[in-house]
Amino acid sequence: MTTQPKFTLSPIGYVRSPYNETAQIPKGLGAKHDVEGELELLPEYEIGLTDIEGFSHLTVVWVFDRSTTVELFGKVPSDEQRPHGVFATRSPRRPNPLAITNVELLGRDGRRLRVRGIDMLDGTPILDIKPYLSNVPEDKLRRGWLAEVEARKGK
Amino acid sequence: MTTQPKFTLSPIGYVRSPYNETAQIPKGLGAKHDVEGELELLPEYEIGLTDIEGFSHLTVVWVFDRSTTVELFGKVPSDEQRPHGVFATRSPRRPNPLAITNVELLGRDGRRLRVRGIDMLDGTPILDIKPYLSNVPEDKLRRGWLAEVEARKGK
Repeated sequence: MTTQPKFTLSPIGYVRSPYNETAQIPKGLGAKHDVEGELELLPEYEIGLTDIEGFSHLTVVWVFDRSTTVELFGKVPSDEQRPHGVFATRSPRRPNPLAITNVELLGRDGRRLRVRGIDMLDGTPILDIKPYLSNVPEDKLRRGWLAEVEARKGK
Repeated sequence: MTTQPKFTLSPIGYVRSPYNETAQIPKGLGAKHDVEGELELLPEYEIGLTDIEGFSHLTVVWVFDRSTTVELFGKVPSDEQRPHGVFATRSPRRPNPLAITNVELLGRDGRRLRVRGIDMLDGTPILDIKPYLSNVPEDKLRRGWLAEVEARKGK
């Protein structure tokens, strides 16, 4: 095994969320995320938000900073019956504990973005924010084992 | 300014792409990304791909590993007239040089995923792969300054 490079990243800001414990966050099949919260950037990055108000949705890259284990093959809340490979799930137990959430941008107050669709704990470190630009065509989207579980459960 | 935590990440694999130089990658307004390539995982992560074949599209998190500068406010190829905040763009000159690309999964051969929609250079480090699960409703999606530039140029 050759040695792999390392990339060291540091937060650009933090999530302000009503969730203080993992158990409070809706999980599994059909979980709805319409809770509001804030993305609060560090003061030195505020200039990087210029013109962000025009976008309705943002993609937030953040860290599962309270996830301490890696499980390459295991069960997730949306399917209690069968384990899946971690890259076929959104499990926090990933080799790199990175998460992506698409949120709706409700408003901006300086370095604070008010957003809907929070599924992060309060204080979660944010690594990046990008404008959400385009969808995958609906008629081409297949959702693998998740669609199978939904069919099994009649959802 | 308080000290921020650091997160050290390491590649789970590398992109095999026909692009060897940044200049070869389509950029700017209306750029099409339908080139095929491979996501090649390190052998130890192959088990994490179990069941990924059922998904039509994947979200790839990768590193702009050849980007060396940060520009919080600047011009990007899709708009030569006005600068924008970096978090309102997909510029590589970000505080954390993270990129996200949604690709179409064409097939899997062990630890290699054949995909369409590559916009990375050959050898680009991959940090994570996730299933693409759902779209933002089209009637709710606004694309800010990008839509304005498109209107200006009649695209």
